[in-house]
Amino acid sequence: MKLSIPQGTRDFSPEVVRRRQFICNTIQKVFEQYGFQPIETPAMENFSTLMGKYGEEGDRLIFKILNNGIHDPKNIEKSKAAFENILTGKNDARLTERALRYDLTIPFARYVVMHQHEIAFPFRRYQMQPVWRADRPQRGRYREFWQCDADIIGSASLINEAELMCMYQAVFQALGIGGIQVKINNRKLLAGLAACCQAEDQFTDITVAIDKLDKIGWEGVEKELQQRGLQAGQIAFIRQYLDVQGAGHEELLNNMQSLLASSELAQKGIEELREVLAVHRILAEENEYGNSSITIDPTLARGLNYYTGFIVEVTTNVVTMGSLGGGGRYDDLTGLFGLKNLSGVGISFGIDRIYDVMDELNLFPETVQSGTRILFVNIEPKAQTTVLQYITMLRKAGIAAEYYVDGGKFDKQMKYADKRRIPYVGIIGEREFQEGCIQLKNMETGMQEKLSPDMLLEKIQ
Amino acid sequence: MKLSIPQGTRDFSPEVVRRRQFICNTIQKVFEQYGFQPIETPAMENFSTLMGKYGEEGDRLIFKILNNGIHDPKNIEKSKAAFENILTGKNDARLTERALRYDLTIPFARYVVMHQHEIAFPFRRYQMQPVWRADRPQRGRYREFWQCDADIIGSASLINEAELMCMYQAVFQALGIGGIQVKINNRKLLAGLAACCQAEDQFTDITVAIDKLDKIGWEGVEKELQQRGLQAGQIAFIRQYLDVQGAGHEELLNNMQSLLASSELAQKGIEELREVLAVHRILAEENEYGNSSITIDPTLARGLNYYTGFIVEVTTNVVTMGSLGGGGRYDDLTGLFGLKNLSGVGISFGIDRIYDVMDELNLFPETVQSGTRILFVNIEPKAQTTVLQYITMLRKAGIAAEYYVDGGKFDKQMKYADKRRIPYVGIIGEREFQEGCIQLKNMETGMQEKLSPDMLLEKIQ
Repeated sequence: MKLSIPQGTRDFSPEVVRRRQFICNTIQKVFEQYGFQPIETPAMENFSTLMGKYGEEGDRLIFKILNNGIHDPKNIEKSKAAFENILTGKNDARLTERALRYDLTIPFARYVVMHQHEIAFPFRRYQMQPVWRADRPQRGRYREFWQCDADIIGSASLINEAELMCMYQAVFQALGIGGIQVKINNRKLLAGLAACCQAEDQFTDITVAIDKLDKIGWEGVEKELQQRGLQAGQIAFIRQYLDVQGAGHEELLNNMQSLLASSELAQKGIEELREVLAVHRILAEENEYGNSSITIDPTLARGLNYYTGFIVEVTTNVVTMGSLGGGGRYDDLTGLFGLKNLSGVGISFGIDRIYDVMDELNLFPETVQSGTRILFVNIEPKAQTTVLQYITMLRKAGIAAEYYVDGGKFDKQMKYADKRRIPYVGIIGEREFQEGCIQLKNMETGMQEKLSPDMLLEKIQ
Repeated sequence: MKLSIPQGTRDFSPEVVRRRQFICNTIQKVFEQYGFQPIETPAMENFSTLMGKYGEEGDRLIFKILNNGIHDPKNIEKSKAAFENILTGKNDARLTERALRYDLTIPFARYVVMHQHEIAFPFRRYQMQPVWRADRPQRGRYREFWQCDADIIGSASLINEAELMCMYQAVFQALGIGGIQVKINNRKLLAGLAACCQAEDQFTDITVAIDKLDKIGWEGVEKELQQRGLQAGQIAFIRQYLDVQGAGHEELLNNMQSLLASSELAQKGIEELREVLAVHRILAEENEYGNSSITIDPTLARGLNYYTGFIVEVTTNVVTMGSLGGGGRYDDLTGLFGLKNLSGVGISFGIDRIYDVMDELNLFPETVQSGTRILFVNIEPKAQTTVLQYITMLRKAGIAAEYYVDGGKFDKQMKYADKRRIPYVGIIGEREFQEGCIQLKNMETGMQEKLSPDMLLEKIQ
């Protein structure tokens, strides 16, 4: 029998779990300091909750769960009828009522609507849970992966945007990832751009094309815009917009303002960027982050089309890796579920990519592997009670301690300590037992010393 | 549109998440102190990995995931054929290759076999993840619930058993749950019992019946044993076994030893219990737990039939609630996947029930709700920069702080602080702004005092 796990999923071994926990704990600490509260939602949602929220492609990539009891005699006719539907590519709740969570945003919106009467708005929530997508697995893309989101819903103030930018800076500083760029833009500018070249109807086409600039270059974008029916003059204007430059934020914003002068919406977007930057300056100064890592990026579009204002994306220039996080403002997310007029803004951290960057750059602190501190080898049966007492004493003092209970060859026991990277080994042979002392071996230096029991705790703390 | 989540699943609101985290963190700390390492496995497993491992009933309760692309033209014929199979109650990988994790034990066995060459044995692992079962939901029974397991695999020493018993004591002491009873037994005694009454073949029937003693009483057990074909003499002997008494562990063990004298296996089980208790006595003494909470319970059977030696179950007599945890030794778990001769022993904590007990007894410490410590109201636009600076200063000092960015009516802002149970509110009105000070309101006492900014941190720390 060949044992395996489903394609695109992963087992996490102890070292990996600890490193991932380090990332999650670091992010969680920042979320908490900024007043965000944790929620959790079920892995399964009603398929009807998810359907139609991620575009046609998204619907296809949702994992559906087969109802139980579909072969019960009382259900069998319904099941057959439903299967006919499914074979035509439709969904049918008679066979698949439930589906696995595809992201954390839609479940969050669903949560807010269902719990609206118990929530104190503005609601600052964070959520760190796995999501599942039936995408073709490839390097860095998994079918089970973790999302880590912080959102504020029910507040239109742009101070939120500035705080979220600081949270990115705080997290990546705490993780030790250098070369961080926090790129910001505003979808109102992109809508204004569409308006300026009389292509309001093609706003989505334009953003989707611009979004690919990084990957396919201007030639690719130009070709896509042509295919989507934009005229040469319109395309030239879009090119002009993407090329806008400026020495410093203010000059860049002024140049955009001139270029998009004919669109009121664009002017509003520029004003918002100015305000966000002004608030961020106050926060960043106090935080000593500075604003050198903040870039206004007119080409930033963010594919997902529920964003309506501020958008943000974080990259590092230290290694080649896509964005480590992103987010933006959405004006009517809960409107999907019938709760209107709640503006929200949120950011997301890509745990898997952050992990890969930190792994590549060797940024995980040694202390992350905080496992067992001392292993007592088992070579002298008479010493068993003594060892059990020492171990208990150490554990009570908060020190992780282990006994190699099975005994056997000394070498085998040392090998175990080595493989587990346990920093100290305690040895009580016959002589130590008679003398009431311990040989303590430092596994890193190889040094060994004889200690009285009361020295032990102090030594390995 | 009526919004809902699937039956038997739950949203966890911030207060609940924090309480659950308190439980999990407490358990995790004990696991780590005893040298256990965390692993995580995917939510989805190949259905073939799970199938047949949980009995017929279990197979039926596994949530299966519909393959994607079953309606692709190239798959459609296969899909139809597979559906015919499914309608007869079979599983067919052409439609459902994957399924949701049903427990943590089988994925753990699968993990050990797949990673055997990188693991340092004995392998002490812990795992805290949700599992899914298509059981009929009822009070305290969910379709998505959390398991929390610690196992040692690759070690036959009974010291492990004693350590696991101490871990139960340590966790429940740390959680503050009183009236804990750690009941232990050994399946070798039950096998010996079957042998003593010439019913070796009906070992499973006997254990399954005995396992229900709590719920259905002796009359129920007797009836079930009769139905399963046991003779009056055999049943009388079983009754005798279940009634064994003794003042203290040693006397009880002696009485069992006499009763089951004809079974070598039973003698072995009794010896094992003696040894476990002897080791536990050493550990418990040092830990000051004592052994008054330890009971030998001849009627303890544990339904799951992969246990082969020591078994354990924890209850509290403070509230009416089923077991809060249980476990035991299994001699050949990984044998299911072709890796023979690895003995293991493990325990499990029932997070949901522990939560319910703690909630009912009001045992969660106040500090669990460690959210925002101070909210600054927004009533004076001129003070905005000052407030943002204070907030940043506090956050840098590790204090969770929030600004009511949207402003609006003072009452509304205070209500928000109240609803969120934020202990302090910072007020900077025009006068405070001019004077460079802060009004700090203690939301519990209602007291308000004027502070200089450098007093603030000290005051609310």
